[in-house]
Amino acid sequence: MSDEQRWQRLDKRLVADRSPFARVYDLDFCLPDGRVITNWLQVDLPPFAVTFPLTEADEVIFVRQYRQAVDGYLLELSAGHLEAGESAQDAAARELYEECGAVAAEWQFLGRYVMDANRGCGWAHIFLARGAQIVAPADSGDVGEISVHRLPLGEVRRRWAAGEFVSAPTALAIGLALAALGR
Amino acid sequence: MSDEQRWQRLDKRLVADRSPFARVYDLDFCLPDGRVITNWLQVDLPPFAVTFPLTEADEVIFVRQYRQAVDGYLLELSAGHLEAGESAQDAAARELYEECGAVAAEWQFLGRYVMDANRGCGWAHIFLARGAQIVAPADSGDVGEISVHRLPLGEVRRRWAAGEFVSAPTALAIGLALAALGR
Repeated sequence: MSDEQRWQRLDKRLVADRSPFARVYDLDFCLPDGRVITNWLQVDLPPFAVTFPLTEADEVIFVRQYRQAVDGYLLELSAGHLEAGESAQDAAARELYEECGAVAAEWQFLGRYVMDANRGCGWAHIFLARGAQIVAPADSGDVGEISVHRLPLGEVRRRWAAGEFVSAPTALAIGLALAALGR
Repeated sequence: MSDEQRWQRLDKRLVADRSPFARVYDLDFCLPDGRVITNWLQVDLPPFAVTFPLTEADEVIFVRQYRQAVDGYLLELSAGHLEAGESAQDAAARELYEECGAVAAEWQFLGRYVMDANRGCGWAHIFLARGAQIVAPADSGDVGEISVHRLPLGEVRRRWAAGEFVSAPTALAIGLALAALGR
């Protein structure tokens, strides 16, 4: 097997345009063995930034809000879409301020990750932010109230290992940040 | 803020049906503050299982295959959709055997995670499988060749922390498994 065995795209058709939040396409491909697959759904969602904000007191800042996919409230790390022309770190810092009223002294990039390697579903850009502190009231959310919560780092680790953070970008970022912190 | 402030769903319209692989809907909601949002895209993808298979020699078994969303090859953990009526662990074991020709002695559930808390995009059911061993040739994949690779645990940790595993379910599972192993 060589890396040259890519799929050859034959066609791409727009199925639904909910810009700037989502675009869905049907793709047709010719596989390396000659088979053709049609109506392969591609889901384009915007890239987003996720931040693990650690305070000097070894607390992690979380947001809690209603999330449609679970029809309930989730405790998650601050996250949001990159705006046009905005760097991932600028988006992370902007969302941390908007959602939590927080700023941070030191930013470390922990990688970018595709949420679904088959269909897309957006890329997460993950950051560890040390020296985080709440300096302002949080904005209300775009589509509902957000509340801000601080949890001790040890509790975050325990609850993460127990599978309590069910939002995948949050759980991924917690794992990467704990490793980067050596905790 | 109380937990009663859920969004009230007003309507749900099928946008694209690519069953059993994907279904896309437009939803309309009434927010707690009375605002109405329309055409909120929901992306239903099947639940899937992801396995971190560790051998007695402290190697982790990976698969490498073409992935459409990156138009290239990715090194990932064994993963696949739950079939109708199949438990997550049964799906994980089946995929490990189909993709890697491997079985495992001891299975540990590390949680389930929604890939996109806004839109869905499927739930990942994550497992650590100790005592894994390759006992048969791997099947070829559904839509292209899969190759099987074994990496030493220390190398997996190093490459994971460096952001080299860009498939989010794989990176999430590696973090959880390393913590469960205390490594």
